Amino acid sequence: MYRTHSCGELRINNVGEQVTLAGWVQRIRKMGGMSFIDLRDRYGITQLTIDESASKDLNTAAEKLGREFVIQAKGVVTERTSKNSKLPTGDVEIKLTDITVLNASLVPPFTIEDESDGGEEIRAKYRYLDLRRNPLKKALELRHKMAQEVRKYLDGIGFMEIETPVLIKSTPEGARDFVVPSRMNPGEFYALPQSPQTFKQLLMVAGYDRYFQIVRCFRDEDLRADRQPEFTQIDCEMAFVEREDILNTFEGMIKALFKNILNLEFNEAFPRMSYADAMNFYGSDKPDIRFGMKITDITSLVQGKNFPVFDSAEYVGGICVEGAAVYTRKQLDELTEWVKRPQIGAKGLVYIRVAEDGIKSSVDKFYSPEDFTAIAKTMGAKVGDLILILAGDSKKTKEAAGTLRIEMGNRLGLRNNSVYAPLWVYDFPLLEWDEETQRFYAMHHPFTSPKPEDMDKFNSSDKNEIALVCANAYDFVLNGTEIGGGSIRIHDSVVQQRMFEVLGFSAEEAAYKFDFIINAFKYGAPPHGGIAFGFDRFCALFGGQETIRDYIAFPKNNAGRDVMLDAPSKIDEVQMKELCLKSTVTL
Amino acid sequence: MYRTHSCGELRINNVGEQVTLAGWVQRIRKMGGMSFIDLRDRYGITQLTIDESASKDLNTAAEKLGREFVIQAKGVVTERTSKNSKLPTGDVEIKLTDITVLNASLVPPFTIEDESDGGEEIRAKYRYLDLRRNPLKKALELRHKMAQEVRKYLDGIGFMEIETPVLIKSTPEGARDFVVPSRMNPGEFYALPQSPQTFKQLLMVAGYDRYFQIVRCFRDEDLRADRQPEFTQIDCEMAFVEREDILNTFEGMIKALFKNILNLEFNEAFPRMSYADAMNFYGSDKPDIRFGMKITDITSLVQGKNFPVFDSAEYVGGICVEGAAVYTRKQLDELTEWVKRPQIGAKGLVYIRVAEDGIKSSVDKFYSPEDFTAIAKTMGAKVGDLILILAGDSKKTKEAAGTLRIEMGNRLGLRNNSVYAPLWVYDFPLLEWDEETQRFYAMHHPFTSPKPEDMDKFNSSDKNEIALVCANAYDFVLNGTEIGGGSIRIHDSVVQQRMFEVLGFSAEEAAYKFDFIINAFKYGAPPHGGIAFGFDRFCALFGGQETIRDYIAFPKNNAGRDVMLDAPSKIDEVQMKELCLKSTVTL
Repeated sequence: MYRTHSCGELRINNVGEQVTLAGWVQRIRKMGGMSFIDLRDRYGITQLTIDESASKDLNTAAEKLGREFVIQAKGVVTERTSKNSKLPTGDVEIKLTDITVLNASLVPPFTIEDESDGGEEIRAKYRYLDLRRNPLKKALELRHKMAQEVRKYLDGIGFMEIETPVLIKSTPEGARDFVVPSRMNPGEFYALPQSPQTFKQLLMVAGYDRYFQIVRCFRDEDLRADRQPEFTQIDCEMAFVEREDILNTFEGMIKALFKNILNLEFNEAFPRMSYADAMNFYGSDKPDIRFGMKITDITSLVQGKNFPVFDSAEYVGGICVEGAAVYTRKQLDELTEWVKRPQIGAKGLVYIRVAEDGIKSSVDKFYSPEDFTAIAKTMGAKVGDLILILAGDSKKTKEAAGTLRIEMGNRLGLRNNSVYAPLWVYDFPLLEWDEETQRFYAMHHPFTSPKPEDMDKFNSSDKNEIALVCANAYDFVLNGTEIGGGSIRIHDSVVQQRMFEVLGFSAEEAAYKFDFIINAFKYGAPPHGGIAFGFDRFCALFGGQETIRDYIAFPKNNAGRDVMLDAPSKIDEVQMKELCLKSTVTL
Repeated sequence: MYRTHSCGELRINNVGEQVTLAGWVQRIRKMGGMSFIDLRDRYGITQLTIDESASKDLNTAAEKLGREFVIQAKGVVTERTSKNSKLPTGDVEIKLTDITVLNASLVPPFTIEDESDGGEEIRAKYRYLDLRRNPLKKALELRHKMAQEVRKYLDGIGFMEIETPVLIKSTPEGARDFVVPSRMNPGEFYALPQSPQTFKQLLMVAGYDRYFQIVRCFRDEDLRADRQPEFTQIDCEMAFVEREDILNTFEGMIKALFKNILNLEFNEAFPRMSYADAMNFYGSDKPDIRFGMKITDITSLVQGKNFPVFDSAEYVGGICVEGAAVYTRKQLDELTEWVKRPQIGAKGLVYIRVAEDGIKSSVDKFYSPEDFTAIAKTMGAKVGDLILILAGDSKKTKEAAGTLRIEMGNRLGLRNNSVYAPLWVYDFPLLEWDEETQRFYAMHHPFTSPKPEDMDKFNSSDKNEIALVCANAYDFVLNGTEIGGGSIRIHDSVVQQRMFEVLGFSAEEAAYKFDFIINAFKYGAPPHGGIAFGFDRFCALFGGQETIRDYIAFPKNNAGRDVMLDAPSKIDEVQMKELCLKSTVTL
């Protein structure tokens, strides 16, 4: 061992001990004849001192040190005269007797401090230096702890962690697969799993009735901000269960995480909300319920008063923003422009200010004071509040109102990252009709079971009936972010065949892609269901952050590149030849 | 929930309780008017009974059942009249009141019993049925338990589990990489990691001084028996350590596994052996030390006696097989043929029988009784033993003697799978010279440090000097199988550059492949080292098995195919086009 103690370990009761530390030079200061070195490792920072009485050798050695040099330092633990209460080691310092440079360092391209002066790109290229910074260390420590807690909890209630393969079969449906050419089977490819979905279902068929895995998954998508081509899931499945059993089991796990990681106790059951309610009241299938400001439908209240915009709208609804009557005309204009941006796509914004001196609105030529009072009453507005109203197509308007609600929540500081509001959302539609390809797509995936009471509709030949089928599916939402999703699966091979039919797969296509699972269902498949949690985002939310990148040791950028490795990259012609492949582009 | 209890749970003190079980029909027997159903789930088997007094409906339902049907069964726990002491639930049975078929099953293509009648191929195709068999369930349960114990132990001593990427850069050196074409970067490829080697070293540079991960790795090799293209490693690295620290740390982990998984206590330190001793005494770098029968060098003893085969040999050595003097001439002839097989490649086999009635040998015309007595004494042979001698090139002959030793160990029943003999082997050569390509290859990998005392040789311009350099590397060997391997790494960028030079990489080549790590070493890399354990084989050995396949839920066959999925497979032309790839073969 190069050290007797870590840099986060020494306390007042160690005074007088001869110790050896090893770590990185965080800072060097000179004061009078004294030198002070802050030595850093994973565990903390300890102050080293060289005083006037030190040997010339020691002083010379110290003079050669620079930031991020790796040194081994020997000396005696001494009580500090001016203590630093901010450091756990701040009561002591090491009076040095010896320094050995274990490795020198070039001057790092950015400062290794909590707030670095380095831009995102340079920090990505030198990720190994960025990872030395405290916020990233805390992020990875949190991730480690969460992974251990998840395993401890699930192991404790009889779940088995079972590893599923990474080299599997390509069955494109939904996102694109990454593929891996097989040298030993020329012209053929493996695929990387988008999730272990079919494997975990096969494990249920095999009788492993409580399965989990913290597992890497892959999706070749055109990357959006804060999406990674590879990501980690807490993947779980249970047999002989109904929805209620799954929600209870994983609510238990999540509560244990809150308790053991954040020391937050949730004694009540997590709230639950149907997909329909989520859309109606929050304009989103992942409502942030840290704050109210629910969307209210006022269509019937405002129509028939000769305001053409409202009269012609399928839906009129809005939110009541508490205490925002003080918003100026300028602020309201800016907000109107904001909702008209293409990402939101509203045609305009109507406001009603409920002020001390009466109600003011952008549409007061169409409505009487009594009309406004009625609206204010319906929306629960009191003096000082601001009502914001959108109108148009029902689904789009609710979604726009939901986005506006989140924006107002942000502006009013109602979305505190250290407050946690968990929520289950359930009863999603099973299918989505796509006009372009004239077929249904699975909202979740093709193994999701319809709700038992909707089986008649599911077997109907009328596509409008089929469109109404609810899935036996559920999402776990935290602070407006979908963290987990799952469903009760189909376990009847006839229902599964019907699902493939509804999705427009030919029998051959279904057989080619999913033969193994259709077959498996013929040999005694138990009722089963499961859930998967996005582990990267789960960690980020627990860390109070919105971006996942700091919670992944070596992430890729938005173009799917690892800029540190410079990957992807060209490969040798020999490799291409062995794989029986030719590239159709020249680099 | 579909059940109140599992099939492994009910005991005599549950008698009288109304219960609901769910599981698979293992067996149905009729005796007189009674029906007996063995119901199986992951936790055990419980006997269900339907007696003469049962309703007609129940009897009808029972008659329709077949093997592997999934049922839900309700009834009352009753004490058995004839108890089954082999089953934990054998004191009770469930007197049925109700059966619900949850799913029917076709007749499975092989029996779901401890010893199945199914061949390997059919069981692989129906892996989800094979996994229902007890031996596979026990194997996966063991694997789950080992993974949890490893994590618990390492977490407990401050190791952080950090996930490293799967989509990385191709740096072929050693085995072939699997590659993944990048759609977003046409013509470029990611590679799948053969191990997270460079990442864990970067984590040391980043200050995470105790890292581990149970991680999937990939090697595109021409598969040998019992090798998988994807496999799992317990991957570990530590900073500020020397060899001794690593061996002690992981010896602790392995002892904890022995204790907590197999209830075996190892109170002494594991034995250690240099590579040179391993080769000299066991003819192998992974000696099975469950038994003695060491190889003895008798070159000087046997030369100069006019036996040309020995006189012309670089090396003569052999083993003393205890109690094998009874071997018949026929057995000895068969053994001679055995060592002459190309896999072993010995030219012949000389025996010396040390029998009651004197010493007999195949070479007694060249050697006197005194000569034989001297040989017998050197080899520690006593009356009743058989000495087997090989001669030829030193390295090959020792290896052949080592293989013969293992064979004799097998034949004599000295290799009991429930006996465990752990061993550290150390001081491996750093490099291997390859005559064909006229260059050195790294025995371990190019990041392995030379031993400090060999640095002069390492920097020599004489390749014979370089060839003598020892690596600061070590293997963990269990019962003759290499389970773990690691080394102290190079942490000095100058030494690393020298290593690339010795391996014959041009500066450009080294920079292209390893720029990031050479760079990283310039910014304060601490001394570090690590180890990785083959988790699949570790589990198999702990399970007392030689093959890893049962310890992997969904393994591939020797051609790298998943016969259940039928992967790899062709992919759509659309996919190929998106990836800018053309296949040079037509399927």
